[in-house]
Amino acid sequence: MQATDTAILNRADIPSMPPLPAAAAARLADFLSSMEQLESSFVGYPCSQDFAYPEIIPLLRFALNNVGDPFGESLYRENTFSFEREVVAFFQKHLRATEGETWGYVTAGGTEGNLYGLYLGREIYPDGVVYYSEHTHYSAAKIVRVLGARSIMIRGADNGEIDYEDLRETLKIHRDVPPIILANIGTTMHGAVDDLGKIRTMLKDLAITRHYIHADAALSGMILPWVKDPQLFGFDAGVDSLSVSGHKFIGCPMPCGVTLARRRHVDRVARSVEYVGCMDTTIAGSRNAFSPLILWSAIQRRGEAGFQQRVADCFALADYAIAQFKAAGLHAWRHPNSITVVFPRPGPEVMARWQIAPSRDIAHIITLPHVTRTMIDHVVADVAASLAQRVTPKL
Amino acid sequence: MQATDTAILNRADIPSMPPLPAAAAARLADFLSSMEQLESSFVGYPCSQDFAYPEIIPLLRFALNNVGDPFGESLYRENTFSFEREVVAFFQKHLRATEGETWGYVTAGGTEGNLYGLYLGREIYPDGVVYYSEHTHYSAAKIVRVLGARSIMIRGADNGEIDYEDLRETLKIHRDVPPIILANIGTTMHGAVDDLGKIRTMLKDLAITRHYIHADAALSGMILPWVKDPQLFGFDAGVDSLSVSGHKFIGCPMPCGVTLARRRHVDRVARSVEYVGCMDTTIAGSRNAFSPLILWSAIQRRGEAGFQQRVADCFALADYAIAQFKAAGLHAWRHPNSITVVFPRPGPEVMARWQIAPSRDIAHIITLPHVTRTMIDHVVADVAASLAQRVTPKL
Repeated sequence: MQATDTAILNRADIPSMPPLPAAAAARLADFLSSMEQLESSFVGYPCSQDFAYPEIIPLLRFALNNVGDPFGESLYRENTFSFEREVVAFFQKHLRATEGETWGYVTAGGTEGNLYGLYLGREIYPDGVVYYSEHTHYSAAKIVRVLGARSIMIRGADNGEIDYEDLRETLKIHRDVPPIILANIGTTMHGAVDDLGKIRTMLKDLAITRHYIHADAALSGMILPWVKDPQLFGFDAGVDSLSVSGHKFIGCPMPCGVTLARRRHVDRVARSVEYVGCMDTTIAGSRNAFSPLILWSAIQRRGEAGFQQRVADCFALADYAIAQFKAAGLHAWRHPNSITVVFPRPGPEVMARWQIAPSRDIAHIITLPHVTRTMIDHVVADVAASLAQRVTPKL
Repeated sequence: MQATDTAILNRADIPSMPPLPAAAAARLADFLSSMEQLESSFVGYPCSQDFAYPEIIPLLRFALNNVGDPFGESLYRENTFSFEREVVAFFQKHLRATEGETWGYVTAGGTEGNLYGLYLGREIYPDGVVYYSEHTHYSAAKIVRVLGARSIMIRGADNGEIDYEDLRETLKIHRDVPPIILANIGTTMHGAVDDLGKIRTMLKDLAITRHYIHADAALSGMILPWVKDPQLFGFDAGVDSLSVSGHKFIGCPMPCGVTLARRRHVDRVARSVEYVGCMDTTIAGSRNAFSPLILWSAIQRRGEAGFQQRVADCFALADYAIAQFKAAGLHAWRHPNSITVVFPRPGPEVMARWQIAPSRDIAHIITLPHVTRTMIDHVVADVAASLAQRVTPKL
């Protein structure tokens, strides 16, 4: 055990990979060029694309793996736990968790975070009913199905929030079973924030003391911490767990997220595992170790002031888009503190051209920093042309 | 819509990231150096580390995302679906699926694949009982808990396979509920392959016609296709679904895997989603689009002959390790067609030094191509020294 690293491993002894065949290389070059083409039309999904993390490249030759609980020690030492813990701490602080009260980890994306939160809720209340509004991300239906949980979809208001009256009436009818409420902190289509204050008052009024609240804060969970007058959104608003995406507002080449939950809930599901020498507290076993590095790097690069400025810039861009739509005679709007600009649904060719997601009669763009004013001008012109066509009577 | 890409997007308009602060850069440099140190001791986990995929680096500046079903069309066009489909086809072929009969996708790792398979099983048989041996990967217990499925752990034989007698007796007692069997095609600790032939005969003997078999083929699923005399392992052996890791035998800087399932099972859970314009057939929503590219590249680089040679080289290395252990007076062994070399558990300092996973009284190394003979010599010497110390009577 005294031998030095170089005495043990001569890297020349490790066989190198065969080269990429020319045809495959050509295909990748074509693919790169098609992605470059798509850059100018990437306005419809809530994923930032203004990033560059060259610092992780030298690490891509390692089989890094954050298997298990980042707050434990792992026998698998090629991990980025120390960076992951700092990322979790940053999210804990800005999502207003009291120190020591929550636990968290970096997930492979929003679905894993929402699955984790609802899983904890269902473990606490196995007979509980999951409530979520019809504006909730489509993965909610799949998650409750995976969990085998009972669920009730609540009507959504036109502004994208949950219909509080419908929620109240439904909770009232089912007072015999604990509610597990999936609240939206920024809905997918409208960027709407469910009012956690109203929801908690409702639970209190109905004398429902056994309840669980999970917040899906995919996009807005990294916006609201940086605004002056945020809606209720964090642990100080009484949520039990929360999921935020990392590839959305922050930006990351691969989907990732952070999920946080009150520690006492996590302790119920934790289980020690000899094979990796740590606790099996996460949904995934082996976990991507690069995404924590990337989030850490983004936090280091931007800092709190950087995120504040980033949010302000996105709001200004959203207001610019709304003004341009208005100038084109179209009604566009956004929620307070949202960067999701909602406008009337254009024809399918416009949505395909701009990678825009529709829902019923609306569509949206997300004014993230990689979206330029020129791109917005083109979107507005195309949407206006498409809608003008539609109202022209066919002769 | 006539405007060209360059007329719409001037890349100089996209703000660039603030630089990485010097302290952060220094910390990453330290981390890189600590990973370089660990390279010489990376013998204990089944993850190849002989890869280099520089071809993906230019793509790391895009917000690639394989959201939804890779066989659909997505509105989110910054995806690698076309590469993913070829990866799935490669796995389908070598895991012996009849053409057109299965469906699959690239997962974030083994747990997602096993969760997917058992989820399908439970959807088909909601009252089913999941059976798995005690040698099954530790995530199985978590998965059945997430699914809220009934489960029974079956005794494991000393060689790492399931105890067929215990399985038969247990199935017999519970003939009123359909079994969902999680079979191991290469157990985590022993590299043991559960005999799918015996299991199917058993089901037939007991006249159990309603059953589901999921195979966890994390490591061996990419070994057995390349050997002359494989144990039963694929769809031709009657499995309903199957999960193979991508970061294990093939090698990938981030955990990933491929899960395959009979199409008729998948159709039960598929649901069309307007937001992304495709089917929501996967467990995760947003999915890593780089891991399919990496697997595709590995397949292009190595080809079938390359994988065959790779397996043969690993077997030769495993036999070398066994011979060295024997020369040191220690009993080491491996299963047929396995690259997992099992030996008596050494002291904790040896396991920490070599990132070795223990289980009860055994430990193992995995003779993947990045493991050199010199590394093995050092491991054997350390294990022998540790065990010699242990039997020395304390004075």
